[in-house]
Amino acid sequence: MREAYHEELASLSDGLVEMARLVGSAIGRATTALLDADLQVAEGVISADVQVDDLQRDLEERAIALLARQQPVATDLRTVVTSLRMSADLERCGDLARHVAQLARLRYPGHAVPGDLHRTVLEMGQLAQRLMAQAVEVLVTRDVEAALQLEQDDDRMDELHRMIFRHLMDGRWQHGVETAVDVTLVGRYYERFADHAVSVARRMVFLVTGEHADEYTADTPFAP
Amino acid sequence: MREAYHEELASLSDGLVEMARLVGSAIGRATTALLDADLQVAEGVISADVQVDDLQRDLEERAIALLARQQPVATDLRTVVTSLRMSADLERCGDLARHVAQLARLRYPGHAVPGDLHRTVLEMGQLAQRLMAQAVEVLVTRDVEAALQLEQDDDRMDELHRMIFRHLMDGRWQHGVETAVDVTLVGRYYERFADHAVSVARRMVFLVTGEHADEYTADTPFAP
Repeated sequence: MREAYHEELASLSDGLVEMARLVGSAIGRATTALLDADLQVAEGVISADVQVDDLQRDLEERAIALLARQQPVATDLRTVVTSLRMSADLERCGDLARHVAQLARLRYPGHAVPGDLHRTVLEMGQLAQRLMAQAVEVLVTRDVEAALQLEQDDDRMDELHRMIFRHLMDGRWQHGVETAVDVTLVGRYYERFADHAVSVARRMVFLVTGEHADEYTADTPFAP
Repeated sequence: MREAYHEELASLSDGLVEMARLVGSAIGRATTALLDADLQVAEGVISADVQVDDLQRDLEERAIALLARQQPVATDLRTVVTSLRMSADLERCGDLARHVAQLARLRYPGHAVPGDLHRTVLEMGQLAQRLMAQAVEVLVTRDVEAALQLEQDDDRMDELHRMIFRHLMDGRWQHGVETAVDVTLVGRYYERFADHAVSVARRMVFLVTGEHADEYTADTPFAP
């Protein structure tokens, strides 16, 4: 009984790691689709998102079954509840990667992102993928230091997001309103993706230390 | 023991109702702040959001305590887990109302929304508030018909969101890039607010009937 119990707990963690790997890969490929205007890659990201949704539903069912059968308390109970929360973060990351790919598809064969923002958006995409890789590490190791590091690395995402806003609003924008709308949404998708990766890390800090990493809501809607 | 148990379950539901009422009021006031460029109202919405965050944290703690002490199974267990999910939806609605108010504050004493979109944004704001009022009703009555109605009413939000995109992209936009960016974000905030209200209703349908109201993810990032 005890053995099955720990296996079930471990399998929740495995499910989270699998989700995080999938959405990390998805945001990387979505960035490629966006910057290269690659329709095939975009379609791949869009159709793959259902796997993430299925994994989440499966994880939720297993968490509820575990609560019902094993009735965990203390740390184990918090682990299960935290898993539910993390899986919601990761499911949302899958949606956001899909949105980036959907934008690439919508503008194909054109490019949604103009050349002068290519480098900034590439850095956002790579950073988002790297933050998710760090989240995977945190899920596997439960390392609080690594989790806190994620938060610091996310500062760069906010900076990149501000750079996009400044570029949009400095009065020299030459790419028209449609592209301004596209770039606004793209910036928001990457920033929210990063916020959810940070959220996974913060939940781990709380689980391990019992202390909130800081106040929640990294979401900064507007650049100062 | 049993009586305390049912009181605790009921108090989770009360907490959700309180959160839903607060965020419904917040989105209404945020819309006023946005359309009237009313700084005082905006500040009120922004500073009140912490109440919603506190309620969510409190609800989460009480849910975990209930799971540990009472070890509910079957429907009661699903009710507790669903409450956790609903509280995350409602907490996010509070953030989104705050974002609308923050935009009003950022552009004060100017108006973030130009006159020709005033009516559309007003309707989005009113609809968002109404959807949340319906969600409150669903939380109180557990009425599946009312929950399904919410989904239909949300179609109008998607339509309004598409109207904004069409207006932005019809080539006659006269308000510059900054305002285009503002309006893009505002449209997204209202749409996401509505999605979370619908999500609360769907979770209730699942809780009551055991069937998913439909596939999830009402989130439609781009207008066709």
